[in-house]
Amino acid sequence: MKALIKDNPVRGATFTDRPIPQIGDNDLLVRVKAAAICGTDIHIYQWNEYAASRIKLPLLFGHEYAAEVVEVGKNVANFKKGDRVAAETHVPCSHCYQCTTGLQHVCQDMKILGVHMDGAFSEYSILPAVCAWKLDSSISYEIGSTMEPFGIGVHALSKTKPAGKKVIIFGCGPIGIYAQMVAKLSGAEYVIGVDVTTERLDLARKMGTDIVLNAKKVDVVEEVNKITKGFGTDIVVEITGNKGVLNDATKTLRRGGDIVLVGLFSGPVEWDLVNNVIYKEANVYGVTGRIMWDTWWSAQSMLLSGKMDVSPVITHRFDLKDYDRAFQLAESASTGKIIFNI
Amino acid sequence: MKALIKDNPVRGATFTDRPIPQIGDNDLLVRVKAAAICGTDIHIYQWNEYAASRIKLPLLFGHEYAAEVVEVGKNVANFKKGDRVAAETHVPCSHCYQCTTGLQHVCQDMKILGVHMDGAFSEYSILPAVCAWKLDSSISYEIGSTMEPFGIGVHALSKTKPAGKKVIIFGCGPIGIYAQMVAKLSGAEYVIGVDVTTERLDLARKMGTDIVLNAKKVDVVEEVNKITKGFGTDIVVEITGNKGVLNDATKTLRRGGDIVLVGLFSGPVEWDLVNNVIYKEANVYGVTGRIMWDTWWSAQSMLLSGKMDVSPVITHRFDLKDYDRAFQLAESASTGKIIFNI
Amino acid sequence: MKALIKDNPVRGATFTDRPIPQIGDNDLLVRVKAAAICGTDIHIYQWNEYAASRIKLPLLFGHEYAAEVVEVGKNVANFKKGDRVAAETHVPCSHCYQCTTGLQHVCQDMKILGVHMDGAFSEYSILPAVCAWKLDSSISYEIGSTMEPFGIGVHALSKTKPAGKKVIIFGCGPIGIYAQMVAKLSGAEYVIGVDVTTERLDLARKMGTDIVLNAKKVDVVEEVNKITKGFGTDIVVEITGNKGVLNDATKTLRRGGDIVLVGLFSGPVEWDLVNNVIYKEANVYGVTGRIMWDTWWSAQSMLLSGKMDVSPVITHRFDLKDYDRAFQLAESASTGKIIFNI
Amino acid sequence: MKALIKDNPVRGATFTDRPIPQIGDNDLLVRVKAAAICGTDIHIYQWNEYAASRIKLPLLFGHEYAAEVVEVGKNVANFKKGDRVAAETHVPCSHCYQCTTGLQHVCQDMKILGVHMDGAFSEYSILPAVCAWKLDSSISYEIGSTMEPFGIGVHALSKTKPAGKKVIIFGCGPIGIYAQMVAKLSGAEYVIGVDVTTERLDLARKMGTDIVLNAKKVDVVEEVNKITKGFGTDIVVEITGNKGVLNDATKTLRRGGDIVLVGLFSGPVEWDLVNNVIYKEANVYGVTGRIMWDTWWSAQSMLLSGKMDVSPVITHRFDLKDYDRAFQLAESASTGKIIFNI
Repeated sequence: MKALIKDNPVRGATFTDRPIPQIGDNDLLVRVKAAAICGTDIHIYQWNEYAASRIKLPLLFGHEYAAEVVEVGKNVANFKKGDRVAAETHVPCSHCYQCTTGLQHVCQDMKILGVHMDGAFSEYSILPAVCAWKLDSSISYEIGSTMEPFGIGVHALSKTKPAGKKVIIFGCGPIGIYAQMVAKLSGAEYVIGVDVTTERLDLARKMGTDIVLNAKKVDVVEEVNKITKGFGTDIVVEITGNKGVLNDATKTLRRGGDIVLVGLFSGPVEWDLVNNVIYKEANVYGVTGRIMWDTWWSAQSMLLSGKMDVSPVITHRFDLKDYDRAFQLAESASTGKIIFNI
Repeated sequence: MKALIKDNPVRGATFTDRPIPQIGDNDLLVRVKAAAICGTDIHIYQWNEYAASRIKLPLLFGHEYAAEVVEVGKNVANFKKGDRVAAETHVPCSHCYQCTTGLQHVCQDMKILGVHMDGAFSEYSILPAVCAWKLDSSISYEIGSTMEPFGIGVHALSKTKPAGKKVIIFGCGPIGIYAQMVAKLSGAEYVIGVDVTTERLDLARKMGTDIVLNAKKVDVVEEVNKITKGFGTDIVVEITGNKGVLNDATKTLRRGGDIVLVGLFSGPVEWDLVNNVIYKEANVYGVTGRIMWDTWWSAQSMLLSGKMDVSPVITHRFDLKDYDRAFQLAESASTGKIIFNI
Repeated sequence: MKALIKDNPVRGATFTDRPIPQIGDNDLLVRVKAAAICGTDIHIYQWNEYAASRIKLPLLFGHEYAAEVVEVGKNVANFKKGDRVAAETHVPCSHCYQCTTGLQHVCQDMKILGVHMDGAFSEYSILPAVCAWKLDSSISYEIGSTMEPFGIGVHALSKTKPAGKKVIIFGCGPIGIYAQMVAKLSGAEYVIGVDVTTERLDLARKMGTDIVLNAKKVDVVEEVNKITKGFGTDIVVEITGNKGVLNDATKTLRRGGDIVLVGLFSGPVEWDLVNNVIYKEANVYGVTGRIMWDTWWSAQSMLLSGKMDVSPVITHRFDLKDYDRAFQLAESASTGKIIFNI
Repeated sequence: MKALIKDNPVRGATFTDRPIPQIGDNDLLVRVKAAAICGTDIHIYQWNEYAASRIKLPLLFGHEYAAEVVEVGKNVANFKKGDRVAAETHVPCSHCYQCTTGLQHVCQDMKILGVHMDGAFSEYSILPAVCAWKLDSSISYEIGSTMEPFGIGVHALSKTKPAGKKVIIFGCGPIGIYAQMVAKLSGAEYVIGVDVTTERLDLARKMGTDIVLNAKKVDVVEEVNKITKGFGTDIVVEITGNKGVLNDATKTLRRGGDIVLVGLFSGPVEWDLVNNVIYKEANVYGVTGRIMWDTWWSAQSMLLSGKMDVSPVITHRFDLKDYDRAFQLAESASTGKIIFNI
């Protein structure tokens, strides 16, 4: 099969042939139909420190995807050949405290598809059945491949009750925009999106964000103060992972509000906790991945409701062989979701 | 001043002249601008058992209203002449356990405007300052007079998280429709409205309810089973107060769902708790009035968001002198909100 | 093997020999060590309408038990021969909405051990691996056999926050007493236990309940009014399943309090919802079974904390062949937990 | 009257005579009976940067106190001469969003007694009626003067559900010990207290903390790992305000646990949010002051329950004239609560 392999500890990847893998008794073999590029994939492609410290080569990477089941492991009861599936990328052990109390997505012994085990930038992939989500017949493979990042937005907002609330979301990359769409769908009084890229702010506005702010052009704290007439925001969602953003982001929060942390900072962050969390009596929620399977059920309901159309968040489509152009574009941080049709 | 007085223990009321009342040190004297007819007012007008057991005559009734402040009690610090206000009708004692823990609306020693003390179907009214809500300049007196019943809808849904959920609301009177609008604004996958009156179901559909069911024409349990493909509803809101409705309503609920009880039943209800609550592990929330002042802040945010227009829920307007026609219409249970412009 | 079989649709049971059963690929074969009599077992023994409408004969009944693993199905990864286990009696399908969102215990397609499939009043039993809980080495088989009913008490109180609260629990059978012990452990200001049997009230007092009330001898509503100085209780837990109790029980609740419903009523209940739930804005929580596996983790932590000793709740022990005496005693509703050592 | 005044911007204070103050219409004049030294008072006494940046001289300081009402402002309805009261030190405006939604303790325009206005190290003090709590007749003035810091412990733990959970609390000063006592009362599996002072660790153990760790003598992260057998803690409460503690403290937390932040750090803190909050999907709760008045009701219930005796946390008592010795002792960070009997 065709596959995109990270085989050398330098920038780049190799598009090559590989044998179709053998599945275990608890796995599915799937024919990948669409796979999206995630921030983690960019790290792997660039081979930066984040990647170098985590990844063992060679690796078939890529983990946001949708596929068709072509073979079913013998212990697997609830899937059959021909089923359409999307992949949850956090592979839980199923037995630890977290796995047995509804927190599989933060399993103590978690593996991640395309990071700790082979992924899906390829024609076929092994999907542990515990990570397979049956795709509704009305949801395309392309949209299916984005349910994983869309789910992060769903999960992030599920920590809060946005109806009638002033919501600000830092970051207008795909996850940021998904989060903004979910906040808007959930009845926010208004949603403010913040980024530094004109293309992403334009996309946010196009997708329905009420107010967009370019942090390069305005003083966000001051601007939010004006917009909220000194009230502050009720809910702050941080999705940039930029250490310089956190203090300003949480300065905009009113006393007694909620902070959701999604973006991954590169190392410890200097945070004025006394003024931004303690004196404000803020609630801060760390968010990673998606709750299995609450988030997926909610995400599916939102998509099926007909009240949001996430398809324009996919801004570019490529063949897998054109991976180099795709990754260069992804690195620009100015696009929506980039998809490989496989 | 002109005033509508319930002075005899029989059907009807008297439109008459009364002296402008004297306020106490903690009160506001207000010039009533718009007052809406509530179900309780119909009880008082009809003088049914509900009214006869609660009301001492004579009574100036009416309690859903908006007004202009014309005089300020000397202990009142935060209101001034000319302020536009809407009235919270639950008058809390401010000192009991409930009042000091955020539950003023279920104060142990609560009085209700227009029930236990004179109300507002009149040119002037006494409004305890503790019950006055400053009306935003962009909200009209008419809409202001409906913030009290609108608030019940807001409060009812605030017990739940409707985003991505299947919501069914029994009752398409004004509060039912408000609740449906709030559920929809809050991102429900879909909202089902149930009633027995064509006019009300038409109004519900007009206001955005996704699916309406006429309980006289279809078997609601069966129909919901079809709509949800056997899944059941996530959230059931009961606003009819009809004892015959409760078991069917909660039969539609999926296991692990939420039930919100708003409608006032006339006496105890035979409820199959084992099958509809215990085996389902349902959460049931009693709802009365509005949380002071969370609900009002949320209600205001929703109105100001520009994402919902509640004005068409007001279907009829009358002069106070035409009270008789207004009440006859209200009794038909086929209208939206009926307003007196005063 | 020796086994207690319900084989005829009349009062009683048959103590007999049976072949050791064959397990499936996802099951464990276990050697039962201790099994407790549950209310459901009494129904089956008596063959009342509850039993007759649910049970297909013949049935090996009994479901509260602890055991040693003697054989492991070939798909089962996390158990091995010699493991000590306790049994969760709700057998979930693992695939429905409830099962995939942390609500396995109210699975849409749930089976119950000893009700819908053979149970454990026998030397050996089949335990689906999905229902096996590894017993901590410091917990005896006897205590292990009561973790299932103890878990109901843990789960019931987990709906509330008892610390510093006035808690009343109706019913001083084993589950009632467990619930009272959990409420006390959780820091309740005081716990009131209500029953009609002197023996059970004595046992409740012995196990630490602060105040016990005999509903046959005092007017509970009046007495609670005195005890709480008119304040009412913060938390009401109903475990009697007696239809006559519910209105009085919830009359004791303060406005804004919590009601937990555990007891199974025989048919619909006449409940004054307006005064006991809606005007009070009470929260009502239906409770059945135990959350898998949160409740078990909590139950284990409480037992291991050394801060509660549940062993005296077991008041009687029998050999399985003396089942008749055991059931007669159980029917008296005046004992603690009755155990078969097998 | 005798009063302790901070009048010069240097270390120390002046014990002197002052006229009894004049109350406003919404105030109470109270005769102070007992007043406790708070960390803030030490800052003021030392005149460090924290104090210098906040305090305007001269100031009558001290704010944790209990007193008898001797005069009642004319707008005050619910207090009378002779009432025994404890003081809430956060003075809310009563009108902002926070004040009208149950968050008076984080009022946007909050004043603090003894910081922004005169306090209570004196024979008489002005207590705004909005901040007066009626002391139960069975609670002494001494204990009453500690309800404010005790309340912080109550409030901190109220963010979590400690029953059956492993709780670790960093800091064994008075608030730390109160928090540990509340965690234990609330049914924690075990409570671990951490400090660097032998006297405080001894006091913690004496008050019932299950395990105490001296961070100067052991590696806390390693030690907790052993104690919890690699599981980690469920709930981390940070009360030291020591920037060096936060990362280690939150390293002990299991995935999916709760962090409560109470201690005030001097400036921004370098926190490894990715590993300690985001990947763990931790919930972080900022805590300041006490909820008005939920926390006070809970604190009172806990004291009245007879299940905790906080009196030994008061380790020293002084006359106000011996303030110098009292403050030197307080600075040692090795005592429990220090009280002035006035």
